[in-house]
Amino acid sequence: MGNKIGGMLTQADNAILVIDMQKEWLAPDAPFRNDNAVATIPAIKKFLDWGRANDWAIIYVYRVQRISGIDADMFRRHFFEDGQPYCLPGSVGAEMPDEIAPQSGDIQIHKQRFDCFMGTDLEIVLRGLGVKNIYITGTQYPNCIRTTAVASMERNYPTTVLTDCCSALTKEVAEANIYDLKNMGIRCIPSTDVIEKSKTV
Amino acid sequence: MGNKIGGMLTQADNAILVIDMQKEWLAPDAPFRNDNAVATIPAIKKFLDWGRANDWAIIYVYRVQRISGIDADMFRRHFFEDGQPYCLPGSVGAEMPDEIAPQSGDIQIHKQRFDCFMGTDLEIVLRGLGVKNIYITGTQYPNCIRTTAVASMERNYPTTVLTDCCSALTKEVAEANIYDLKNMGIRCIPSTDVIEKSKTV
Repeated sequence: MGNKIGGMLTQADNAILVIDMQKEWLAPDAPFRNDNAVATIPAIKKFLDWGRANDWAIIYVYRVQRISGIDADMFRRHFFEDGQPYCLPGSVGAEMPDEIAPQSGDIQIHKQRFDCFMGTDLEIVLRGLGVKNIYITGTQYPNCIRTTAVASMERNYPTTVLTDCCSALTKEVAEANIYDLKNMGIRCIPSTDVIEKSKTV
Repeated sequence: MGNKIGGMLTQADNAILVIDMQKEWLAPDAPFRNDNAVATIPAIKKFLDWGRANDWAIIYVYRVQRISGIDADMFRRHFFEDGQPYCLPGSVGAEMPDEIAPQSGDIQIHKQRFDCFMGTDLEIVLRGLGVKNIYITGTQYPNCIRTTAVASMERNYPTTVLTDCCSALTKEVAEANIYDLKNMGIRCIPSTDVIEKSKTV
């Protein structure tokens, strides 16, 4: 056997997370469209293509909520009670944008909270692959990116936040979070640096 | 709004777990068919029907594994490497038997380990519903039933294992586990007792 079964990697030193890049807040007609997240799509696409070519594990983490809202964040449960649910299983809003849609062999995980480790099988998957290093892409900085980056670092994974592949609603919020993350020992660099550095190893 | 959204309960004091009752080990032609688990199907069906009628939350917990086997238990990963995967997403083997198949409004959760709390959103769902008491059905005693019952009790949920709705490969193994579980303060009684007692409250 090789290092793939059913087209999926069975071992990988490095994993790229793609967090919450969903049409619910990226589609042209999305009521809560986040333009800064839309702007990161080309960089994410390039980094994922490079990662796949190097047998890095690509892990898409989706926010998905039950229509009852019982698994929604407490401060958002009213949307479900008021008939405005979001990220329902199988809905278009829950999908990743077509440009960076998952490809065969990529891993998909559903979550209900900011932290990609909470209430998910992310840790089981990372252990099963033998992942050593985690690279984070997606949106948005103060919530899912930061919470997951800290949760990853607290588990002693060397953690890198790709600054050209992550976003917030404003530049100021992004910068304030990057400032804090760097002070925790979380590497915050553009994906182009990772790709460039790999050429010299 | 009532206590249901989209046909799903939004609040429930009591939850019934249905663990690992999957065709992979229950179907007539299943290579690892567990006759003792098959024998519990009528009692589980009766208890679930009673639970639904009383607005108890019904939570089906499925073992589901990726075809790569990266999320399989370590001691079983060789099945995937040898081309004998089980409980693949969307496969017939992963389904619950037709007699106790999930109904509209029931909750479904996927797991990869014995412990239904590990790497799943079970705790998020229980908190969201406000569940106070947990009732366990399914198979089999030494692995998923016991590990989940202990994990539930350790979280201070009053926990009941329904002895006519749970099974092991042998009667001796079932009895040895029930003996230990009772000594941990986990109630082990037949579902008929729960139904009977409710009439006198």
